[in-house]
Amino acid sequence: MGLVKRVGFIGLGLMGKPMARNLMRAGYSLTVHNRSRAAVDELVSDGATSAGSPKAVAEQVEVVITCLPDSPDVELVVLGPGGILEGGRPGLTVIDMSTIAPAVAVRLADELAKRNIRWLDAPVSGGDVGAQQATLSIMVGGDVAVFQDCLALFQAMGKNIVHVGGNGAGQVTKVCNQIVAAGTMAAMAEALVLAAKAGADVSRVIEAIRGGAARCWALEVRAPQILRRELAPGFKAHMQYKDLNIVLDAGKTYQVPLPVTGTVRELYTAMMAAGRGELDTSAVVTVLEDLARVQVRGKEDNIT
Amino acid sequence: MGLVKRVGFIGLGLMGKPMARNLMRAGYSLTVHNRSRAAVDELVSDGATSAGSPKAVAEQVEVVITCLPDSPDVELVVLGPGGILEGGRPGLTVIDMSTIAPAVAVRLADELAKRNIRWLDAPVSGGDVGAQQATLSIMVGGDVAVFQDCLALFQAMGKNIVHVGGNGAGQVTKVCNQIVAAGTMAAMAEALVLAAKAGADVSRVIEAIRGGAARCWALEVRAPQILRRELAPGFKAHMQYKDLNIVLDAGKTYQVPLPVTGTVRELYTAMMAAGRGELDTSAVVTVLEDLARVQVRGKEDNIT
Repeated sequence: MGLVKRVGFIGLGLMGKPMARNLMRAGYSLTVHNRSRAAVDELVSDGATSAGSPKAVAEQVEVVITCLPDSPDVELVVLGPGGILEGGRPGLTVIDMSTIAPAVAVRLADELAKRNIRWLDAPVSGGDVGAQQATLSIMVGGDVAVFQDCLALFQAMGKNIVHVGGNGAGQVTKVCNQIVAAGTMAAMAEALVLAAKAGADVSRVIEAIRGGAARCWALEVRAPQILRRELAPGFKAHMQYKDLNIVLDAGKTYQVPLPVTGTVRELYTAMMAAGRGELDTSAVVTVLEDLARVQVRGKEDNIT
Repeated sequence: MGLVKRVGFIGLGLMGKPMARNLMRAGYSLTVHNRSRAAVDELVSDGATSAGSPKAVAEQVEVVITCLPDSPDVELVVLGPGGILEGGRPGLTVIDMSTIAPAVAVRLADELAKRNIRWLDAPVSGGDVGAQQATLSIMVGGDVAVFQDCLALFQAMGKNIVHVGGNGAGQVTKVCNQIVAAGTMAAMAEALVLAAKAGADVSRVIEAIRGGAARCWALEVRAPQILRRELAPGFKAHMQYKDLNIVLDAGKTYQVPLPVTGTVRELYTAMMAAGRGELDTSAVVTVLEDLARVQVRGKEDNIT
């Protein structure tokens, strides 16, 4: 624990709730707020204080953390009626750990700066397991002095904590992370479906290629799970779809054509159309299986 | 060394020449043939025997290895006038280590089987460095008994040697390898260009994302080289373009739609259009840089 003692946490979802718990375990005094009541009650029974609005949270703490689904949610909680801006005194720090559009992060930082409220954008990767085990990767954008003041907080929630640049840089980094994570996932899925339909032993194909230039997390971790037909999340496809839309919005903002990621996004659009948003991101393989009329399975004897 | 003593090697290019050398070092008696004379003379001065045609090679050895650019080259050398089929006695083994269409590999195996000539398709990955250092990954399709007879040969040229299935399975595996290798490369390139144009410190972005779900060989090995502007091969873009065309032909043969790989192939079409085929595959980043009107560089201070 550093100098910060009183922390507010807004957004107690799949990620936020375990992250808030880890802060309490590390000794922080926590004030929480959430749209739905159940998660609040849980944390209050663990010793947290409940506040009726983001404004009320901001009035009681030194640092407010937000962990919300998308850009409009964070905008509302920060700038909206009863929001953080209304309750925040000069010197307050707002850390947004949601994944939102980089341009929105920069705008929020600018608005808060007018009232001398400090900002960090600090999106995470590592999924709900990483949130529970405090092993999240945290990509932080914002003033380096603010980052230093909040480092102990991050260390209570994650492991690979990198300050990547000024306001928005954390979100840009998350965008880059999702480009590569989703791209490798989709390429891995295409390879598995091709192997399966060509009659190859898919498990041996994975074994043969995973050590070389095709080496990637998707092939090492998710491909064997696909062979076992374990398609439960993990990281949900509809959240990846949301993130890929943020990626392509960033491409529009910064004027960067992203032809591969655009195609990958359409595969996740197909996941949504098929009603498979609650499955793991790796279940994008099912869209390709449908297109090719084949199912990837574990063991086959020979090639046709 | 196993039972095989006399080996023929056809195709002494960037890959074939060092592979043939490693066989000689391992004690095999080598007979070589190549379209251009210089590489033949080099190996002859090292102790190899020269033969005037693929047929003449086949007449003198127990195993013929081919290592040629593309499917038509292998078809010509095996089935054409003065080809292996004309010179090969029953019991000869042909190992094609080129990357060619899986369907062509299966057809050649079938043609050779009619004369009791044995077949393995054994494409490699690992580039010219892997060929020189005998650290190639070798993906072998064909009869398992033939594979066992030739294992010592493979061990003289590579390290990760996997028998993946029957005739054609080696080429199917190489196709899968290229889908993932090229897909991760293109996704990595899109991420770097986005990061650069958004004003991020690209080296910190790489550091922040390379440990999680975005982890891949392209990000670990090639991204830092891009920052240092080292775009020399490695593995040439025009060879990756050739391989991606084989991938999409395989998609046509097996009726597997490959939307992501199709888009990736078009980026390599753009590499060819720009006259950049001699650069490394990672130089595909330059196509995206051109589109986005930005150059990826090593160090920036801040995000805009």
